[in-house]
Amino acid sequence: MAGNSFGSLFRITTWGESHGPALGVVIDGCPAGLEISEKEIQTELDRRRPGQSSITTSRKEEDKVKIMSGVLHGLTTGTPISLIIDNKDQISKDYSKLADTYRPSHADFTYDAKYGLRDHRGGGRASARETAGRVAAGAIARKILKKKAKVEILAYVKEVREIKASINPDAVKFSQIESNPMRCPDKTAASKMTQLIEKIKKDGDSVGGVIECVIRNVPAGLGSPVFDRLDARLAQAMLSLPATKGFEVGSGFSATLLTGSQHNDILTKRGQKIITRTNNAGGIVGGISNGMDIVFRVAFKPTATIFKKQKTLTNKGRGTSLQMSGRHDPCVLPRAVPIVEAMTALVLADEYLIQKTVKL
Amino acid sequence: MAGNSFGSLFRITTWGESHGPALGVVIDGCPAGLEISEKEIQTELDRRRPGQSSITTSRKEEDKVKIMSGVLHGLTTGTPISLIIDNKDQISKDYSKLADTYRPSHADFTYDAKYGLRDHRGGGRASARETAGRVAAGAIARKILKKKAKVEILAYVKEVREIKASINPDAVKFSQIESNPMRCPDKTAASKMTQLIEKIKKDGDSVGGVIECVIRNVPAGLGSPVFDRLDARLAQAMLSLPATKGFEVGSGFSATLLTGSQHNDILTKRGQKIITRTNNAGGIVGGISNGMDIVFRVAFKPTATIFKKQKTLTNKGRGTSLQMSGRHDPCVLPRAVPIVEAMTALVLADEYLIQKTVKL
Amino acid sequence: MAGNSFGSLFRITTWGESHGPALGVVIDGCPAGLEISEKEIQTELDRRRPGQSSITTSRKEEDKVKIMSGVLHGLTTGTPISLIIDNKDQISKDYSKLADTYRPSHADFTYDAKYGLRDHRGGGRASARETAGRVAAGAIARKILKKKAKVEILAYVKEVREIKASINPDAVKFSQIESNPMRCPDKTAASKMTQLIEKIKKDGDSVGGVIECVIRNVPAGLGSPVFDRLDARLAQAMLSLPATKGFEVGSGFSATLLTGSQHNDILTKRGQKIITRTNNAGGIVGGISNGMDIVFRVAFKPTATIFKKQKTLTNKGRGTSLQMSGRHDPCVLPRAVPIVEAMTALVLADEYLIQKTVKL
Amino acid sequence: MAGNSFGSLFRITTWGESHGPALGVVIDGCPAGLEISEKEIQTELDRRRPGQSSITTSRKEEDKVKIMSGVLHGLTTGTPISLIIDNKDQISKDYSKLADTYRPSHADFTYDAKYGLRDHRGGGRASARETAGRVAAGAIARKILKKKAKVEILAYVKEVREIKASINPDAVKFSQIESNPMRCPDKTAASKMTQLIEKIKKDGDSVGGVIECVIRNVPAGLGSPVFDRLDARLAQAMLSLPATKGFEVGSGFSATLLTGSQHNDILTKRGQKIITRTNNAGGIVGGISNGMDIVFRVAFKPTATIFKKQKTLTNKGRGTSLQMSGRHDPCVLPRAVPIVEAMTALVLADEYLIQKTVKL
Repeated sequence: MAGNSFGSLFRITTWGESHGPALGVVIDGCPAGLEISEKEIQTELDRRRPGQSSITTSRKEEDKVKIMSGVLHGLTTGTPISLIIDNKDQISKDYSKLADTYRPSHADFTYDAKYGLRDHRGGGRASARETAGRVAAGAIARKILKKKAKVEILAYVKEVREIKASINPDAVKFSQIESNPMRCPDKTAASKMTQLIEKIKKDGDSVGGVIECVIRNVPAGLGSPVFDRLDARLAQAMLSLPATKGFEVGSGFSATLLTGSQHNDILTKRGQKIITRTNNAGGIVGGISNGMDIVFRVAFKPTATIFKKQKTLTNKGRGTSLQMSGRHDPCVLPRAVPIVEAMTALVLADEYLIQKTVKL
Repeated sequence: MAGNSFGSLFRITTWGESHGPALGVVIDGCPAGLEISEKEIQTELDRRRPGQSSITTSRKEEDKVKIMSGVLHGLTTGTPISLIIDNKDQISKDYSKLADTYRPSHADFTYDAKYGLRDHRGGGRASARETAGRVAAGAIARKILKKKAKVEILAYVKEVREIKASINPDAVKFSQIESNPMRCPDKTAASKMTQLIEKIKKDGDSVGGVIECVIRNVPAGLGSPVFDRLDARLAQAMLSLPATKGFEVGSGFSATLLTGSQHNDILTKRGQKIITRTNNAGGIVGGISNGMDIVFRVAFKPTATIFKKQKTLTNKGRGTSLQMSGRHDPCVLPRAVPIVEAMTALVLADEYLIQKTVKL
Repeated sequence: MAGNSFGSLFRITTWGESHGPALGVVIDGCPAGLEISEKEIQTELDRRRPGQSSITTSRKEEDKVKIMSGVLHGLTTGTPISLIIDNKDQISKDYSKLADTYRPSHADFTYDAKYGLRDHRGGGRASARETAGRVAAGAIARKILKKKAKVEILAYVKEVREIKASINPDAVKFSQIESNPMRCPDKTAASKMTQLIEKIKKDGDSVGGVIECVIRNVPAGLGSPVFDRLDARLAQAMLSLPATKGFEVGSGFSATLLTGSQHNDILTKRGQKIITRTNNAGGIVGGISNGMDIVFRVAFKPTATIFKKQKTLTNKGRGTSLQMSGRHDPCVLPRAVPIVEAMTALVLADEYLIQKTVKL
Repeated sequence: MAGNSFGSLFRITTWGESHGPALGVVIDGCPAGLEISEKEIQTELDRRRPGQSSITTSRKEEDKVKIMSGVLHGLTTGTPISLIIDNKDQISKDYSKLADTYRPSHADFTYDAKYGLRDHRGGGRASARETAGRVAAGAIARKILKKKAKVEILAYVKEVREIKASINPDAVKFSQIESNPMRCPDKTAASKMTQLIEKIKKDGDSVGGVIECVIRNVPAGLGSPVFDRLDARLAQAMLSLPATKGFEVGSGFSATLLTGSQHNDILTKRGQKIITRTNNAGGIVGGISNGMDIVFRVAFKPTATIFKKQKTLTNKGRGTSLQMSGRHDPCVLPRAVPIVEAMTALVLADEYLIQKTVKL
């Protein structure tokens, strides 16, 4: 209800504010007997960490994860796994001005409207820093999927403003994605995107774009119609990320331009496996995975924090103007890649466990 | 978990298959003291009912709703409200051929993969007939919102294939939407859409399109970060509908083409109310409503049921071909309009009740 | 939240009032592929039905169950199972006097306090008639447990007022329990209980007692610490039944009279199976089944409906007196036996499914 | 599902093992705007802390609570509240022998049966140390209830083995309870209980008993029929505590000895308030509070850890014997008093919030 938990059988609850002493996540329902280490979780957190390159924020955070419970001698015990990440850099700045000023397109006004008060330090709970807990939990979800079903989840930057990368989702590799700080496996596009972002950063402005995610080796049968359709859950997962404005799966919005006879995916076989010749479905039919690759895309708006002077209101409703300073991502997409993957893993691990209970 | 419930405080559970004796929904958590009648619920069901016009299926269903519990002397009692809709037309046809043939882009194969067996009669649980229960429950959710907060929810057909209607979401009226069977308030576009669908129908083919929804008078403060952000819940709600492939809110995918300085919505006042000059956010910031109109769009693929011969597989994996006949919508959009509204009402009513518990 | 659902993976939602058109239950999460028939469910409902003997109410209800969804050709399909029981006898009486009078020790005043209004006809939702849905759903839960793990659930009347039956829970058989209308396998005690109840009935009064329940062949490992311990869930399940005032498992309240060295159950082996020499635990240790028989007891108060004149208040708070008439159980215990079994089955089936997801 | 969360609107998730680095709890759904301090929470934890007197364990734990999130400038912000308690004393001992020996009446065997492995150090997750998180969260729940409704929750030791205290639940005061380490407000009984426990401790044995709890100023209307009846939720809450074997409310098991005419509570008025002359109901009718004091009792078995030599099995199923040493409570009741109060507060705070949403 209160909105800080996600999942049912593999259920996470995140806590923590941008500038509190720490952030964390509790995982309830991780099966017992999984090998997991702080190091494996750290690998994913490092991909999300600030300060990775010139196109991301220079905020300094180690984001060191500590396993506080639920793991003994390197194995999960089936009890809750508590993961904590200390905030190192949280007192570097005076946030008092923001206590009574509403930043445009930030959640300042809406948190006040909802709760009657808010933590104004660095966005408080609304900060994207909250996603660190998701990435940490996602690393464990991912391990389950990989170990039990060889599921592979790959996200990458597909578009930044008008620059569109040319990527074949069937063939793209992790090493290609990680080969540049942009996390765009099309090197030419990556280079253009980087230049654009560096220019935008100089202007004190920001840009958005599209992340695409492909999931391979998904067993057919995952997803829980009618409300927890796999695509519905992925849509919720993605729109629960800061700065997202849209989600589409398979043919997505462009499906509307085709007729049924063009769009239908014809069933056929590859060896003993039932497949479809085309994949307009994006791997999900009737809310259930069909064993084809799942492919979806997420739209991210330009970061709300910009360094141009903006008109706005105080929390008393008086007009004022605001000139932000500090360290912020001019484009969230490169760091959002591991977050998209983590949320995907959380959905799939949950449905993977649910599926164990569906057939008698 | 099992996927047939939606919502937390205003929680619905739907049941029933396309060709079973009846369909229904149980609402748990409807506040006591609400005036509600079968007639009010029927009004919404009639908008969803088959057989309304030449562009929808001619299947004959009265879709008469009966209130079985939870209402006494026209007032809700706070106990579960059970609504039942008998299936009248369910034995009109021989479905035996479909028992062992997988229809392309239908959920036949995936239901078998998930459950090991399936109800093949008319799509069983995967049929869009299941949404009747959602519409019935949504009518009650809507009444709460209207009565307590004058919330108005209006959906309409925005695009059919390449035909785009010109509609001002700030000004559109219910009577305009209902003025034609297309449920498109732009009459010229509606006319073109109707012609296109009639042509497609003759071809035995189908088309998709985009529905837009605007919600007015939403109180600021609704939505439950971080996972149950209002936009995340709407995204889940929409992708839980059959045939949907995408969701976007406010500026949506086109947000990616703007810079932050172009996209940010500047806060200002209209009288005593805090508003934003633009509404790229689509009425939701940080997952919480900001009091502006909520605007979102949903992409529907062309109906999977077409009347052209298609290659496919049997449930034993052998090649076969399929020639569908019968009565089906060549374009689901006109009938999907009240369904989109119903799901919207269910999300909002739930968050409306949750919000009563957030401030001490 | 709203309280009409029970369970997580095997989840039921009951609906209906004593004097509405029907009662029902929706089961979401029943695994696919289970053979189930209306007849099997009816068998359990017949055990709960009114009018079975001189010591139960003579209210006439057929309690015929209809399967409305989720079952095809005698097999569950994994989709929601909707079960409906029509109320036949609901308009036999004028309930208008009860509209403004609070019956002592009934939920009339508290429903008004909670909801601001209430269905006064025969107790409305607070009537024990609501448990019919639980028994119907329980029959399916029971089938799963029996088929997959040979689990046997037997409840019986252990005490009526001061009459205590002598029963060995290790040896008691279903046929012994069903051999008399009292559902007490100690024939001598059963006879005394029956005489007492007939006398009490003539006096226009009522009595309570204790039901004991034994569960055999429970796999070790069921139960979800720390909050959903198996005993905690059984306690909730039992106290959720009308007229219950207490629950104890294994040694129960008498455990408090022993020392640890007397109470501890020593582990040993029977063949390859780990057992305990004594069973003070009642089959549950640390909230998890240990493979021994689970044994618990439930205290039922005397029925609140009596036929002596009682002082009370109107819903305006004025003093009045009340003389009930009609058909009511002078002792609920014989009919509560199948209800206790049903709730037990619901808890166990749910934990049985959960356990499938606990080990990697 | 996985069992480590409790509550719906005021929802807690506890984590941590007896000998891990720390224990904690995350509260999701605490309303915004509540004044709360570490000091207030610490006060309750100090009542639960080991080492308080000669009759409790001498294990040294400071149990210092730290607020990690969700509170700013002493006010709750509506976001998750994370509370952490470091384990200071966790490496004092060699637990390796217990890695392969099953302690009688401990959860060693059952955790292995459930999870396939277990944390053997000090009982791991099954240790009563886990309840520290509950007490910390309960302190916040209690503050809400006190501030908004002057609800007062008082538990005390009512019986230790055969020693029964004479206590009037209507009149008992907090100061009387806290006046002795036994937490029994009947000084004569407290003295006898203390002597008994000291003797039992010398014998290397343990004893159990009964805790009674009275709740005053409960608003009428709390509780969510039919499954989440207030008494059902309290029963679950109490049986979810380690070492509990029984629960009864109001007249409890002794209700079975009365007739309906003796047991029914006659409604009457005190000033404008509707009350009952007797309180056999224990303040809950039909699962809903009626405004009278809620009174219930909980049976605790003798502590499983004793210092006499016991026969048992290894985890390979071989016979062995076990001689425990170390620091353990010979009687858990004095320290269980604040835990019972905490769980009570958690149930009531949750139902208090739910009740805000029930009437339109």
